[in-house]
Amino acid sequence: MPTPAPQTYEVDFEPIGKRVKVLPHTTLLETAQQAGLALSSACGGVGNCGQCRIAVLEGQVSSPTLDEEYILTEAELLNGERLACSTQVQSHVKVHVPKGSLVTEQRLQLGGEAGALTPDPLIQTYQLEAPPPTLHDPRSDLERITAVLTELQSEANLVAEPAVIRQIAPLARRYNWRLTVYLHGAEIVGLAPPESTAVGLAVDLGTTKIAASLVDLATGAELAVTGALNPQIGYGEDVISRLTYAHRNPEGASLLALKVRETLDDLLGQLTAQAGVSRIQVADICIVGNTAMTHLLMELPIQQLALAPYVAATNAAIDLKARDLGLTTAPGAYVHVLPCIGGFVGADHVAMILASGLDQTERTTLGIDIGTNTEIVLARPGQLRLTAASCASGPAFEGAHISDGMRAASGAIEAVSLTGAGLTLKTVDNAPPVGLCGSGIIDGVAELRRWKLINERGRFDRQNERVRSGRHGAEFLLVPGSQSGSGRDVTLTQNDINEIQLAKGAIRAGLEVLLDATGTPPEEVQEVIIAGAFGSFLKVHSALDMGLLPRLPHARYRQVGNAAVVGARWALLSRQVRERARQIASRTNYLELTTYPKFNRHFALGMLFPPLDENGKNTAG
Amino acid sequence: MPTPAPQTYEVDFEPIGKRVKVLPHTTLLETAQQAGLALSSACGGVGNCGQCRIAVLEGQVSSPTLDEEYILTEAELLNGERLACSTQVQSHVKVHVPKGSLVTEQRLQLGGEAGALTPDPLIQTYQLEAPPPTLHDPRSDLERITAVLTELQSEANLVAEPAVIRQIAPLARRYNWRLTVYLHGAEIVGLAPPESTAVGLAVDLGTTKIAASLVDLATGAELAVTGALNPQIGYGEDVISRLTYAHRNPEGASLLALKVRETLDDLLGQLTAQAGVSRIQVADICIVGNTAMTHLLMELPIQQLALAPYVAATNAAIDLKARDLGLTTAPGAYVHVLPCIGGFVGADHVAMILASGLDQTERTTLGIDIGTNTEIVLARPGQLRLTAASCASGPAFEGAHISDGMRAASGAIEAVSLTGAGLTLKTVDNAPPVGLCGSGIIDGVAELRRWKLINERGRFDRQNERVRSGRHGAEFLLVPGSQSGSGRDVTLTQNDINEIQLAKGAIRAGLEVLLDATGTPPEEVQEVIIAGAFGSFLKVHSALDMGLLPRLPHARYRQVGNAAVVGARWALLSRQVRERARQIASRTNYLELTTYPKFNRHFALGMLFPPLDENGKNTAG
Repeated sequence: MPTPAPQTYEVDFEPIGKRVKVLPHTTLLETAQQAGLALSSACGGVGNCGQCRIAVLEGQVSSPTLDEEYILTEAELLNGERLACSTQVQSHVKVHVPKGSLVTEQRLQLGGEAGALTPDPLIQTYQLEAPPPTLHDPRSDLERITAVLTELQSEANLVAEPAVIRQIAPLARRYNWRLTVYLHGAEIVGLAPPESTAVGLAVDLGTTKIAASLVDLATGAELAVTGALNPQIGYGEDVISRLTYAHRNPEGASLLALKVRETLDDLLGQLTAQAGVSRIQVADICIVGNTAMTHLLMELPIQQLALAPYVAATNAAIDLKARDLGLTTAPGAYVHVLPCIGGFVGADHVAMILASGLDQTERTTLGIDIGTNTEIVLARPGQLRLTAASCASGPAFEGAHISDGMRAASGAIEAVSLTGAGLTLKTVDNAPPVGLCGSGIIDGVAELRRWKLINERGRFDRQNERVRSGRHGAEFLLVPGSQSGSGRDVTLTQNDINEIQLAKGAIRAGLEVLLDATGTPPEEVQEVIIAGAFGSFLKVHSALDMGLLPRLPHARYRQVGNAAVVGARWALLSRQVRERARQIASRTNYLELTTYPKFNRHFALGMLFPPLDENGKNTAG
Repeated sequence: MPTPAPQTYEVDFEPIGKRVKVLPHTTLLETAQQAGLALSSACGGVGNCGQCRIAVLEGQVSSPTLDEEYILTEAELLNGERLACSTQVQSHVKVHVPKGSLVTEQRLQLGGEAGALTPDPLIQTYQLEAPPPTLHDPRSDLERITAVLTELQSEANLVAEPAVIRQIAPLARRYNWRLTVYLHGAEIVGLAPPESTAVGLAVDLGTTKIAASLVDLATGAELAVTGALNPQIGYGEDVISRLTYAHRNPEGASLLALKVRETLDDLLGQLTAQAGVSRIQVADICIVGNTAMTHLLMELPIQQLALAPYVAATNAAIDLKARDLGLTTAPGAYVHVLPCIGGFVGADHVAMILASGLDQTERTTLGIDIGTNTEIVLARPGQLRLTAASCASGPAFEGAHISDGMRAASGAIEAVSLTGAGLTLKTVDNAPPVGLCGSGIIDGVAELRRWKLINERGRFDRQNERVRSGRHGAEFLLVPGSQSGSGRDVTLTQNDINEIQLAKGAIRAGLEVLLDATGTPPEEVQEVIIAGAFGSFLKVHSALDMGLLPRLPHARYRQVGNAAVVGARWALLSRQVRERARQIASRTNYLELTTYPKFNRHFALGMLFPPLDENGKNTAG
């Protein structure tokens, strides 16, 4: 008896007019990918970034997730607006795709003043047909291809490595000398069967997460996107412990390099399979990451990175062969690792500056990427040079050193709302709460402060009935063990508050010193760009109320999601962007905060919580 | 009881005035190397090339070898003239080194019209001192080096690969930021402790033998020289059987590549040890070889090389990283494989043309490299283009297909002299004769013809009493079994004569077609350059008398030894030479002999032996 054909639903994308059939429960993001539609998705489809907005016009879909309820307004939800990544197909469906959700538009939006990106990739793809060899025309295989290519383009002395020349004989003889050729400047980096496209891989190599995106190098369309945990986590959660591991263990550095290279190659395999392209079509790769991650990837020396004065082995962009990183691609393909600014301000920050247009802005603009290290950068109109600094904010916002802290995994409290009536919590996956992740910690501390459960110095008000005595002093109960996912109470303790104060003191001191050292009054800052995964979760009003960020009008803050991977994608697609990246790296001064005279004073002030007005709002700068 | 110190002798080199102590029986060539004196030695010290001539002024040395008696005249020997490679020290010795035996002079001599070579290597070596990093100067390690370098030279955007950047941190911190840097264009290919020199490796990768030479890239001095058998011999003695092995066996090509790469790395180890330099000082490598050998080395496709129309995967020069060939050198060092002319006219032939100045001659000049394939090239005054061809001469001159043929190993008859009184033979190492090598075969056949033991068609004169009947027809007895090293008779048979006729027919046809196709009357050829190891053994008058070479005045012939390795050495030392090599490859037409209308006629005529005058001399052209 034949298996019955599986039920499929039709999905219509309007106004583009694309139609595709999918299995039930396919998400609309996957459906769009199958239809060849490049929806923006900085978070890789996990529901965080809010970029893949669409509207369901007809048909049945899954109910909104808590993520969606958090990101979309009630009015938007009533309107049928949804996040494509979080919406599953349950019948035939008609969908409206707003222009702003398409990748090319997204670039424009994110790029701000940078304008739209016209693809001008380093990789030039040529379709050619060469004459086969005869006794009267005994030119070599390579020569017959370069002779045709020389007529098609401007590079004169074309070269190719043995690994690439190896492709010619079998491919040319199989396809009757009709071939696709990928050129990188004057170098042939790969060949493929006729009519093959060229694709590129963009990677943001984070300490915790790796985001990877596969793009069509001619159109700029995103073909597939995925992510993975950085496998080096098993050898140290933060940068310093990983550098220590690499330094102390024989072969430690090789092992860490191997682990991350294997994961990148796996991700590339997933992406090419998803997009239905061959690995030999992968003709270019751009990678960004913090300086330690890119050093570990390339097995550059790291000892000097962990000791004062913390210098990189190199700040320059590096082009190396993909095969030297163990990546299976077009045989001559390069990996371009974007330049960095210093030991603590990496290529990911350069990519963020690129993608947010900070280097081309005509307004006084701050860029912030909060993490274990928080990188900040200041652009001022009429000033060629940017100034960047790195704040040792520590891992508190990633949940470390916090009694019930955790990463943004299932059951992590990511939003806290305290009212006279009680407490409302939002957890990742809507799972029973087990701890707090960064945005939940900031929300929680801001609420404690709004309700004056803690004072300006961060001490709990033991007189307040909502404050209880815990094993290690005063604490606030968020979830009793009877309602938590772990069976244990979830609390914010006096020690947690202290840790948060240290973290915010470091960031705030960095911002103040950066403004002070450049002679920029805080109120002149016209825009603050908050980048990174954590930054896109953050509630800005909470960050303002607890004094993590300077008190500026809310509208001046712009949360741009994972701008680093967007910057990497742009570098794949444009020679000009690579040149801009080089200029950003060389135009940016690195400001060493700890040697600045007023640093300690700013640090101490930054640890304090701001005074409150009658509504619990921050009244100070 | 302490071991007594070994006896040593002092050797004085005049007029240079160098003195060195060596153990008894050290050769004068090794002694010169220890004294840092670069004697020319194209053959690698095996006694063939005659380049390392010196004169012993005082002291005792070993007796002249037969090689020396063959190469040097009686008057020269009486004068104390010797080959340094064949002369062992037996007391304190004073030696005169003529200018012509020193490497730099040799170049001039071999180069002929090319003039002296002024070193202008691709590798530029810089000694520098960079400021160490501080908190106020947190530039990366690489940047502090490139900043200093940028002031020392003209390249602006210096780059370095991770493998090279990896060297900086440990070296710079060990040597207080004083370093030697090797630049290849704008790329830093290696670093070394302060005051290190840069050295380069030149290789002629022959089907049978590999010759390798280590040179100082600044002075051009040869520091050490060595050779080895090509280890691929175990997988096929000639090119075609090796290509067949590579094609038919899975992993066959990889295995052949691995074998030869391992041998090259071993040779490099020997050379650096001999010269007392570190492998990280090896900043550049140039390799020549026939097209099949360079293809097998780089694992380029070879199937199309073994099938009509026999085209190369590429004729262009290739720059690849030494590490990609498994060679341990300066971490970013390149290997430059010189361009070839076609599937059967390789980079070794280009290097021969370079070293003999054929591309710059103002006379009509033929170049010939006799082997299993005999490559020939013609240069004409006022003509930009050279014409090259390849003759399938077969392995007869290497001793194959000849009943008592052998390679030029111990006991091989390398010279034959027939008189009315009897026969004089010369064997390699003066060992009891066991067979004939190429030059012995040519001598033998020429003598048989001079004494009319064979006729113009190559048939033995069965009436002649010196011709006997063997198992397979008429034959000539060279050595009876009672006097041979093997206990078996050594003979030249009718079949051997036929094989030699085929070989000489192919070569002669190639020369005639080449002259004919280019409209060059034979008598206009003003110079014939005979290159290669076999060519340096050859007695020109024998080759003329048997009709292997056209009848031109003896003085027009010039035997230049292994010019290929000299060409490779030049390419290491000069950018201009590399450009000349590129031009030679593109300026040389490949003439396919077998499609030329008169080829068969020339082949048939070439198989005949020329008519003789009363002295047994060739009277025909």
